[in-house]
Amino acid sequence: MAAIDDVIQYVEENRAKFEDELFELLRFPSISSDPESSDEMSRCADWVKLNFEQIGLKAEILPTKGWPVVVAETEREEGRPTVLVYGHYDVQPVDPVDLWDSPPFEPRRANGNVYARGATDDKGQAFTHVKAAEAWMKASGGPPVNLVFLIEGEEEIGSPNLEDFIQENRSRFEADAVLVSDTSQFGPGQPALCYALRGITYMEFVVTGAKEDLHSGMFGGIAPNPAHVVSRVLADMKDANGTIQIPGFYDGVKPPEDWELAEYEKLPWNYEELAKQLGIAKLSGEQEFPVPVRKWCRPTLDINGVYGGFAGKGAKTVIPSKAGAKVSMRLVPGQDAVRIAEIFETFVRERIPDDYQVEITNFQNSPATVIPIEDPAMQAGKEAFAKGYGKEPLLTREGASIPVVAFFVDEMKMPTVLLGFGLPDDNLHAPNEKFLLEDFHRGIKTSAHFLDAFARIKR
Amino acid sequence: MAAIDDVIQYVEENRAKFEDELFELLRFPSISSDPESSDEMSRCADWVKLNFEQIGLKAEILPTKGWPVVVAETEREEGRPTVLVYGHYDVQPVDPVDLWDSPPFEPRRANGNVYARGATDDKGQAFTHVKAAEAWMKASGGPPVNLVFLIEGEEEIGSPNLEDFIQENRSRFEADAVLVSDTSQFGPGQPALCYALRGITYMEFVVTGAKEDLHSGMFGGIAPNPAHVVSRVLADMKDANGTIQIPGFYDGVKPPEDWELAEYEKLPWNYEELAKQLGIAKLSGEQEFPVPVRKWCRPTLDINGVYGGFAGKGAKTVIPSKAGAKVSMRLVPGQDAVRIAEIFETFVRERIPDDYQVEITNFQNSPATVIPIEDPAMQAGKEAFAKGYGKEPLLTREGASIPVVAFFVDEMKMPTVLLGFGLPDDNLHAPNEKFLLEDFHRGIKTSAHFLDAFARIKR
Repeated sequence: MAAIDDVIQYVEENRAKFEDELFELLRFPSISSDPESSDEMSRCADWVKLNFEQIGLKAEILPTKGWPVVVAETEREEGRPTVLVYGHYDVQPVDPVDLWDSPPFEPRRANGNVYARGATDDKGQAFTHVKAAEAWMKASGGPPVNLVFLIEGEEEIGSPNLEDFIQENRSRFEADAVLVSDTSQFGPGQPALCYALRGITYMEFVVTGAKEDLHSGMFGGIAPNPAHVVSRVLADMKDANGTIQIPGFYDGVKPPEDWELAEYEKLPWNYEELAKQLGIAKLSGEQEFPVPVRKWCRPTLDINGVYGGFAGKGAKTVIPSKAGAKVSMRLVPGQDAVRIAEIFETFVRERIPDDYQVEITNFQNSPATVIPIEDPAMQAGKEAFAKGYGKEPLLTREGASIPVVAFFVDEMKMPTVLLGFGLPDDNLHAPNEKFLLEDFHRGIKTSAHFLDAFARIKR
Repeated sequence: MAAIDDVIQYVEENRAKFEDELFELLRFPSISSDPESSDEMSRCADWVKLNFEQIGLKAEILPTKGWPVVVAETEREEGRPTVLVYGHYDVQPVDPVDLWDSPPFEPRRANGNVYARGATDDKGQAFTHVKAAEAWMKASGGPPVNLVFLIEGEEEIGSPNLEDFIQENRSRFEADAVLVSDTSQFGPGQPALCYALRGITYMEFVVTGAKEDLHSGMFGGIAPNPAHVVSRVLADMKDANGTIQIPGFYDGVKPPEDWELAEYEKLPWNYEELAKQLGIAKLSGEQEFPVPVRKWCRPTLDINGVYGGFAGKGAKTVIPSKAGAKVSMRLVPGQDAVRIAEIFETFVRERIPDDYQVEITNFQNSPATVIPIEDPAMQAGKEAFAKGYGKEPLLTREGASIPVVAFFVDEMKMPTVLLGFGLPDDNLHAPNEKFLLEDFHRGIKTSAHFLDAFARIKR
């Protein structure tokens, strides 16, 4: 009997114990955005550290400028590949708490689910990898790879200290593959392997006319009005069909390959249903492209915010001194995020009349991330899902950027595999967050299989 | 010796007494926006009523749904014209109080001014008419007209109950002319007679895409973004030269007459200085028109507010569900405010793509107000300024709308004369509000002369 079979048997035999432990973990109100959570955050980190120690890993709690990080690892063995697991023990706030059917930190079992804040995001999902490690330790003396866990406490507040922390301890986290379970399956029982994320360039521009807000009666007709300038610049950026008008914006865009288009055809998506969920008649955007291409493979430009003057209730006759807009562009392979910021800036500056001033801020430049599906980590991910879920994963991209993944891939050059065990309707960041317990167990098995497959393929 | 000479002599002889009384009036912290001012508002209204009684008028305090109104009148005599004086005893708040050089409700004399909240706006200016009435009563047995005072307590909070109050007591306030001193001179010692106000149509439109805000990574490329629609509609409304693009917008616009243009040439305005004060290189707008025409005689369209999505600090990747704009148009003689609202609405609706919804609100429709300069009230105003200030007033318009004036002129059909005694730099609504005491006395004389001239011209 192969080692993996013993491991899977251990997983099967310990379902009840694993669930009990998950419920314990979910009882900590570890809300990272609440400064009063200090004790709960510490107690939660301690519990995670102790759980690692109980299964035989070396674990420690390391401070950051914010909430601490729990790091755990198996004994390093030369010549074996290394896998880094990233997750987070902090959770979102629970407001509005009166919309919960049961208290958010008293895990409730119903319909095969556990209901609690953090059930999927990310305690439940991150814990699958801890329990897979346990199974390897207990049933086979240890996993066939060097395994490192990095469980942070600040994901829900934007991981402000994570990159610095990793940079300062860089050698400790270098790995041949990274596992992240903080996304979801394609649909119930249908796993997906995401091999690409869009990048992002995020800009803001603020136009100033007169130095103060003016009365539109006294000064209307002679005063500059920056809200009109902002509107004209924004109107010029994208035509009514959704085509972006910034010269050079589409330069270098790599269209999806034929095999990708073929994969997307297989996606069991109901676009009419999706439009209905969004409350719109039909999905918007470049109608000449299929929906998955629009969502994942085409670059976009969206106004995320526009402001100027009076936005309260009723009427106020002001000519604003300043008006501005926040605009982000989702980028695809072939686009240079920094160059996009430059041509955006040029486009805006060219449209500001002489009698106005403009200030332009560049908040973020992240290129698109692509992990070749031939990479051993991706191959192992595919096999792991096929075995853990009994179903081949769909190959998907993601339209959003995940900063920590971009950091792992672009900065650390580590292929990152997104093993999503949650469901799209798990109420993340909302009342009645849940996690299907069957997905918890399938997740543990998938993680265990990943380590087996990756050790074999990578070696 | 004519009656008016005795009256003016009385005014000269009572300068010190009038100033003492003004200072008493300025000591009441009658801030109408502060619900805790209740006692002070009552005490101030009582003081005003008592002052009217001391000079021989019948006075009473009448309740409204908000702060009370002080009404006073001379004995009605058939066959004499009636003059209504409008003013207000409430004042603006005093914040930021630490920027005042002396306590706002302890009147301080310096540089020929009195410094106090309400010094010009409107206690000081309104009180000139009370003291002119006193002079007529004491020096000549009464003014040559029926005189009615309406001194309200809610001007600084938008006069929410004034129109209803007047409507309910309409016969009491019907008059052949209305005097309002709540504006300013053209410049120091240079009075101005304002004979026209622009009207206004105020609109808001809100565009909805998806039913909730969406993540721009997950949905960028397939989700509608109403901020783009709003930007395009706004961009279409006015071209870069300031010409409004709503079809029919300029229909019926009456250009200023030659005599008006000739008057405007006389205005001692320094446009470069004005631009400098506003912090801009040059005055904006339709360069083919002179500045006074742009400010007073041309209709305008200004975005007063635009909003949608995230307007806080930093970056948030949201596709807004809703975006909107508040737009007001200043109207001139010949334009129909209601029709302007209609063509605005049509213009917006035509530009909303099928997959968006729009909601349009019409907040206000007021036509432009013009008082023919041949009207006896205007002739009397001219003569009063010439005698009270020793200087012919400039003939001006005003770019803003004054709702109470529009009500008097449009609804009550009463010619309204704006006798402004303040100065443009009197710090209205700001710290260190002031009133030149010499203007207080010239104002009293001007008011006295008005009653004399109007009785003569109107009879």
